Order: sequence, then structure tokens, then C-alpha cells
Amino acid sequence: MSSNLHWLDQEPKALDQEAAAAARARQAQLTKPPGALGDLETLAITLASWQGRVRPSIERVHISVFAADHGVTQEGISAFPAEVTAEMIRNFVRGGAAINVLARALNATLEVINLGTIHQAVIAGVHDVTLGAGSANFVNGPAMTDAQLDGALEAGRQSVERAMAGGAQLYIGGDMGIGNTTAAAALACVLLSAKPEALAGPGTGLDERGVARKVVVIRRALEKHSRHLGTARDALQRLGGFEIAALVGAYVRCAQRGLPALIDGFICGAAALAASRMRSGAKAWWLFAHRSREPGHAAILTALEARPLLDLGMRLGEGSGAAVAVPLLRLACELHAGMATFAEAGVSGKL
Amino acid sequence: MSSNLHWLDQEPKALDQEAAAAARARQAQLTKPPGALGDLETLAITLASWQGRVRPSIERVHISVFAADHGVTQEGISAFPAEVTAEMIRNFVRGGAAINVLARALNATLEVINLGTIHQAVIAGVHDVTLGAGSANFVNGPAMTDAQLDGALEAGRQSVERAMAGGAQLYIGGDMGIGNTTAAAALACVLLSAKPEALAGPGTGLDERGVARKVVVIRRALEKHSRHLGTARDALQRLGGFEIAALVGAYVRCAQRGLPALIDGFICGAAALAASRMRSGAKAWWLFAHRSREPGHAAILTALEARPLLDLGMRLGEGSGAAVAVPLLRLACELHAGMATFAEAGVSGKL
Repeated sequence: MSSNLHWLDQEPKALDQEAAAAARARQAQLTKPPGALGDLETLAITLASWQGRVRPSIERVHISVFAADHGVTQEGISAFPAEVTAEMIRNFVRGGAAINVLARALNATLEVINLGTIHQAVIAGVHDVTLGAGSANFVNGPAMTDAQLDGALEAGRQSVERAMAGGAQLYIGGDMGIGNTTAAAALACVLLSAKPEALAGPGTGLDERGVARKVVVIRRALEKHSRHLGTARDALQRLGGFEIAALVGAYVRCAQRGLPALIDGFICGAAALAASRMRSGAKAWWLFAHRSREPGHAAILTALEARPLLDLGMRLGEGSGAAVAVPLLRLACELHAGMATFAEAGVSGKL
Repeated sequence: MSSNLHWLDQEPKALDQEAAAAARARQAQLTKPPGALGDLETLAITLASWQGRVRPSIERVHISVFAADHGVTQEGISAFPAEVTAEMIRNFVRGGAAINVLARALNATLEVINLGTIHQAVIAGVHDVTLGAGSANFVNGPAMTDAQLDGALEAGRQSVERAMAGGAQLYIGGDMGIGNTTAAAALACVLLSAKPEALAGPGTGLDERGVARKVVVIRRALEKHSRHLGTARDALQRLGGFEIAALVGAYVRCAQRGLPALIDGFICGAAALAASRMRSGAKAWWLFAHRSREPGHAAILTALEARPLLDLGMRLGEGSGAAVAVPLLRLACELHAGMATFAEAGVSGKL
């Protein structure tokens, strides 16, 4: 079924090629051998094309962490109990999770959106967008109804509107949801025509037997839904999860509004993959923060032609890998804006 | 000949294994799957072993940039003229170089040490330790006299003493010297028993013909000195340069004083390799910041069993790649110190 969300059909905002050209010209004049700052040069030029100015900056960062439970946890595919999703929402509110520490260190805005947990609870300080007590077990049927999928996509869009209203220059989406590496792997299997054994990994810490069980569960789900997976939207509805769908909506909206998104790891990568299928051209507004240790991430990055900034063996979610990459963007901007040119410094050029 | 610098023979400081064990235990209690922060966990534990406390921090960073000219530039092995070394020293003093921008962004102390340039000049704001008008052209004879080598090693040691006196928690050495990728490659050829074509690269931007000429120059130098390269000190004296030797002295001294050193790219890597040969055990006090685009760096990193934090295609020197990695260390410390434990947050553990 198609969506009632007409905003999904909007084109991504055009990049500012003039600002990019001016930034490229400036890089060539800075007191260093051409290209010597590597990816930091490319980043500054890309950011210029996004912000429409020769000297971009990344001061205000917005982080939205989307939390939801997954019915597929009934199949015993996670190393942690499903209760942890709601417990971690409380941890986010109290400021004790990794993403809290990172948001404070980066002076970033952090909001938590609860899309529905098994043990339902309205928690003060959380955006409550409960769509149900977690998604349904997709081994037995679709993970989401049409209305739930639209609600999740819309929750993602709204987080981007809040980020824009707050003057954000960078958007980070994060995920929390016990079971979501299973959902992300199942979704990516469809989008990449890959086998479950190629994309299922240990997640929060499954052993070899646990991963084997996860592969079987995903295989059963793929068979169950095989005749109804014609579009990325179908795959997202039947095999995704609330927080994954919210990330899809957010990434599409970022591209439409011209708010650069810094994509985290495996879950966010699967969402970005779905978003890129649902809204072509959107990925021109995304940067990929890091290479997750979750083994399936590599295939997703390859499909997105993404070369992530960091490779630190992280696999936490919450947007943590993206947050860790923010200082690189900031330093790229500072170097680009603050270095002297050859002419200003009286330094001789190349022979 | 052996050195008169008796401090070179001192043992590296012992690591604090108790603090490391306590930090490891703390990591296991933080609200995340075990290992989910990847290298950031290892970093926090390593920093604990260095600082002798469960919750390490990296507030005060000291950066010493060592500048010197290289007689081997007479052979036409650089894309930039030798004048640039002195011109860049002035750029450092005026605050226009990449390392200036990074030092300001990191709130780090930055000092510049001039060990001798072709166009000699005492520049206000620079530590003047002139040992000659650059090193000698090592195609014709040793790059340095015994006295010059000792002077350079000593300049490195003194920079570490200044860093310690300033309360630094991290030491970054940087290099500036037109021609120094040729010297570093020649030095590394000896230390790794490698051929010049395996370690010579474009440096500041040589084309293919330029790299081929560089290979020939290094080959001639290796033949010239072949009977006098028995020790790392010999290789450093005959094929190194003033700033490379100063970095060797600094890295050895960091290990002896227990000041962690964050090693930059190709030049600093060659210096670290020499330092590790001259003072075994020293590398227990070093972190490797990034993988340089200079192709010979990979062999140096392999020999040092180093897994650098970043791989951004940088090849600038000045300590710039190390500076860019500092936020990762800081975030590792913040996560380690600031996250809630499972017990504090009331979050369930692994099944």
C-alpha cells in the first residue's frame, strides 16, 4: 500500500555548487600541499555545498534517539532482554547513557522519542509517540500496520522540523531497541537481495549459536513475506521496526530540508538504505560516520557507496558512532576557515 | 659512535596495571553491551594504565613542532623549494598553519623548535636550537655529526621536560622540513631492511618521475653508507635529519617520564621506529594517531604493530594528524568517566 504522507514525494534540496567551487578554490590556496588534509578537505567542501557558504561551520548539532521494541524478540534473537529498551529510555532521561555523555561533550541538543515499548510507560522528558507495544513479531505477520509505518515516518520528519527550528547545522539519528539488529538485517536482506547469513551478526553480543538462530528466524520471515516485498516501503513495513522507520523518515526529511545528516552504524545504515530507495538523491545530504563492527554493515555501506570517517570497532547504536565523528567535521571547518593562504603567509608554492 | 647522552639508557616508566584492571572492570559495568564502544574502551583502559587512575583525562595537550632543513633537497627530491621550511616557521609563529588552527581548537600548548634551516634566521617566538644550516646532503656523507645528532636528541628531550613542567597529559610531536620524507624513507629502509621503491612516496606532491628520482637518490645514499649502518643510531645519524632525531629523543623521553605520546604520520612514524630500536619498551607509551597517505607509512606501522585511530588520507605533517585524533581520546575518557553503570541505572544485564 502507498502512504498518505505526501511530503515523502518531495525532491531533496539542491546543493550549492557555487559555494562548493569557492571552497575548493580556497582549499587550494591554504598553506599546505594540495590534498594534504585528505578527507578533511573534502568534508569542508561538502559542508560548503550544504550550507551555501565558503566557510561552513558545525556549531549546533541535534541528536534524536528513537526507541522502540520489536516483537521478534519473542524468538530469542537478542543477548539482552526486551525490558532493556524501556530501561535504557530511563537511562537516557537521567543522562547516564553513552549518547548523553557525548551530547554533553559536543554541546549538542539531545532528544529521546519513544515509539512504543513492550512495558509501556510514559516517561517524563521523552517525546511520547507510542504507536503500539513495540512492532509485531514479523515471523508471524507484518511488523507494522500502514498507520504505524506512517506514524513512525512522521515521527522522524517531526524530529527534523524540531532540529531545523532549533537552528541545527547537523542532524544525528540514533536507535535504541532490543532486537533491532535482527530487524535491520532482515530489511537489508530484502534491499540488497542478500542471504540472512551474510547480514546477521552478534548484535549486542550473541554467541555463534545465537547468530545461527537469528539467521533461521530471518530466513523464516523472508519466506513468510516473500510475495509482499516489492518496494522498499513494503520491506520496511513488514520487516523493519518503529525506530528504523522513524530514521527513514528523518533521513528523507533532512535531504528535503537541506539539513545534513550524519549516519551512525548498522541500524541507521539499514534505515539510510531504505530511505535512499524511497527518495532517490537523498543521500547527497548524508555523511557516514563510522564502520560498525556488526558484520552486515559493510554490505550496506558498499551499496550506499559510503566511505565512513571512522573505523573504531564500535557497535553500540544510540547515534554514538555519529557523535564521536562530530569533532572531525568541526576541525575540518576550523582548518578550512582558519588557515592562512600562501599569499597571506608569504609561503612559496609548488615548484 | 655512541652517545654522551646517558639519559637515553634509562628504562621506560612501568605501566600501572592495577589502574588498568580497575578501568577494565569499570568498562564492564557501564550501560552498554560489553565491548560496544570498541577502541574507545581500550583507549580508556590504556590511558588509565598511563595516568595511574581509574578515570583518566586528557585536558592538557602539549604540541612541539620541530623544523629543520635537509641537505638532500639539493638532489631535487621535493615538490616544494627548501625555502618553505623557514617560511612555514614564520607561518607557525603567526598562527596561520594547520597545526596552529588545531592547537587553538584543542586548547593545546604549541611550541616551535627551529633546529636549523638553510636560510638561517632567528625568529621571535621560536625555540632556537640551531645545529647548522640544515643537515648535510646524505648522498655525499652523514646527514649529521655526532654532536648534531646529540643536540637534536637533546632538543627532543628538553621539549618533553617543558611539557611535563607545564602539566601536559599528552605529548604530540610534529615535523616541518622540506625533504624530510626522503630522509624518513631512507632511515626506514635501513630499519626495515626494505628497498627504497617500497618506502619512497610523493611526499608533498611529487609526480611519478619525481618519486623515481627520489628512489634513485635513496638507493645511492644506502650504498654510500652501507658499511656504517649497524645500529639505529648510525642510521639516524647518517640518513635522518635534525627534526627526525629530535622526535626520536622526544619519544624516548616520553616513555621514560611516563608522558603518553600520540604519534603523527610518516615522519613521526619513522622517528618512532628508530626510537623503539634505541630504547626497547618505549612504544608502550605511544599511541598511533592516523594512517598517512604516504605509502611507506603502512610498512612502518606494521613493524611497530600499530593500529592507528584514524585513516583520513592526511599527509601534512606538523603533528596535524595527531591533533585531529585528540578529540577521540577525550571522548573515550568522558564516556569512561561519565556513563552510568548497570546498577546505577537499573538496567538489566546480558541474558
